[in-house]
Amino acid sequence: MIASLSAKNCASNKKAIGIFDSGVGGLTVMRQIHAALPYENICYFGDTARVPYGNKSPETIKKYARENARFLQDQNIKILVVACNTACALATDLHSYVDVPLIGVIEPGVRHAVESTRSGSIAVLGTKGTISSGAYQERLKAALPEAKIFAAACPLLVHVVEEQLFTHAATRLLIEEYTAPLMKNSPDTVILGCTHYPLLQPLFQEILGEDIILIDPAYSTALAVQQKLRALDQLNSGPEKGSCAFFVSDDVLKFKETGELFFQRSLDKVTLKI
Amino acid sequence: MIASLSAKNCASNKKAIGIFDSGVGGLTVMRQIHAALPYENICYFGDTARVPYGNKSPETIKKYARENARFLQDQNIKILVVACNTACALATDLHSYVDVPLIGVIEPGVRHAVESTRSGSIAVLGTKGTISSGAYQERLKAALPEAKIFAAACPLLVHVVEEQLFTHAATRLLIEEYTAPLMKNSPDTVILGCTHYPLLQPLFQEILGEDIILIDPAYSTALAVQQKLRALDQLNSGPEKGSCAFFVSDDVLKFKETGELFFQRSLDKVTLKI
Repeated sequence: MIASLSAKNCASNKKAIGIFDSGVGGLTVMRQIHAALPYENICYFGDTARVPYGNKSPETIKKYARENARFLQDQNIKILVVACNTACALATDLHSYVDVPLIGVIEPGVRHAVESTRSGSIAVLGTKGTISSGAYQERLKAALPEAKIFAAACPLLVHVVEEQLFTHAATRLLIEEYTAPLMKNSPDTVILGCTHYPLLQPLFQEILGEDIILIDPAYSTALAVQQKLRALDQLNSGPEKGSCAFFVSDDVLKFKETGELFFQRSLDKVTLKI
Repeated sequence: MIASLSAKNCASNKKAIGIFDSGVGGLTVMRQIHAALPYENICYFGDTARVPYGNKSPETIKKYARENARFLQDQNIKILVVACNTACALATDLHSYVDVPLIGVIEPGVRHAVESTRSGSIAVLGTKGTISSGAYQERLKAALPEAKIFAAACPLLVHVVEEQLFTHAATRLLIEEYTAPLMKNSPDTVILGCTHYPLLQPLFQEILGEDIILIDPAYSTALAVQQKLRALDQLNSGPEKGSCAFFVSDDVLKFKETGELFFQRSLDKVTLKI
């Protein structure tokens, strides 16, 4: 019985980890997963033909998330990571459309923030969709009922990151304006609740102060994926290093160029999904 | 024979003018058409589920433009106005997919600029897609071979307009940075080659100087539509004022809120196209 179970796992553990995002942002999550689990094959889908998701309606995000999940399931994956905060926040029914384990970035980010805070005062930044859904706020409150939680939508930060204005005066102005009301409440922990924001981490740290703990949910998401695969006996033990395949719905060349900033290594094997 | 032709026209001139754009921006064009042709019925489609178009590939824009045109043709239109500069610049084969007359914003904008310039030095601003296509530059050169033409992509301006940062310091910084290289060439005429930019017209005028002629192609597009319909004997002579119907692919409420800034009147009859 044990031998038969192991044989089954040995075959299926070669399957890929599927990850989707609205575009390049989720590559910051993939980077952490790839670093934590170097023997895993990973299949990434960036929905660049319909990016961004952050300012679209819950109904549209649900539809896009279902379509993306279906595409990745057809690639023979063993687990699905929703690397887009907006999709995690709004496509709340996605679990009923997938037949593999599902991991989002919000729960791991919340766990990380709750472990990090000393004062119990936590701020979260994200797209309009993520913030107005209340997804982070509700989970933080559930995990730490005495927490004081503050949130702000930062709708232009995705776009300044896409334009690589990481240290531009306009970016600085926007961050100062978006965060000023929150900082009056003196949070000690700030969740970067959008996969684009980690590329602004140095600027956030400078503006918010060196003592602020910035939480990038990508780290804890990678850990959650590792734990889930271990629990399911689905970790790929190698011996070959895992391969990375990328699919996009628009413009392979642009994805490669911008994506390398997010993934911090070259992107080979990028295919246009028609 | 003449009577029969008139009867036919009398029936078909009640058909609507179809207009599409990637989102709300095309409402600046619709506003001019509605002002010039108050007896015309107008049917507008904003592809808000896939907005923006400005940073997407020609192939994707072509596909979206065909789908939008097909939808509007199903609404029984007599002429199709492509109010999105990026779609005009990149969906160059659209005419072969529609069976009604097609009017874009680029040719009218070029005509207007060529009539306005005194020095022959003309600058054009637009999305990455519009500018890199060379659509404005080529048509300007064809219309005025001795012209000196300068162009700059301003990718973040769509987003600051959508966030209504019409006079924000960050918007000012971006406009200054985008236009500084162009202004060294002392153009006397600057084409606002994106339907969002007219909402920044006061700021552009302040930054570029009072003497600069800013061209909003919406005005001349409305004139072109009027001329085409007159030539085809398809003008609607009333007596009732024309009605306006709006369709969007996402979020009716958000379209109404933002769209009223662009259309400068309330938007009734907005329907979600599934």
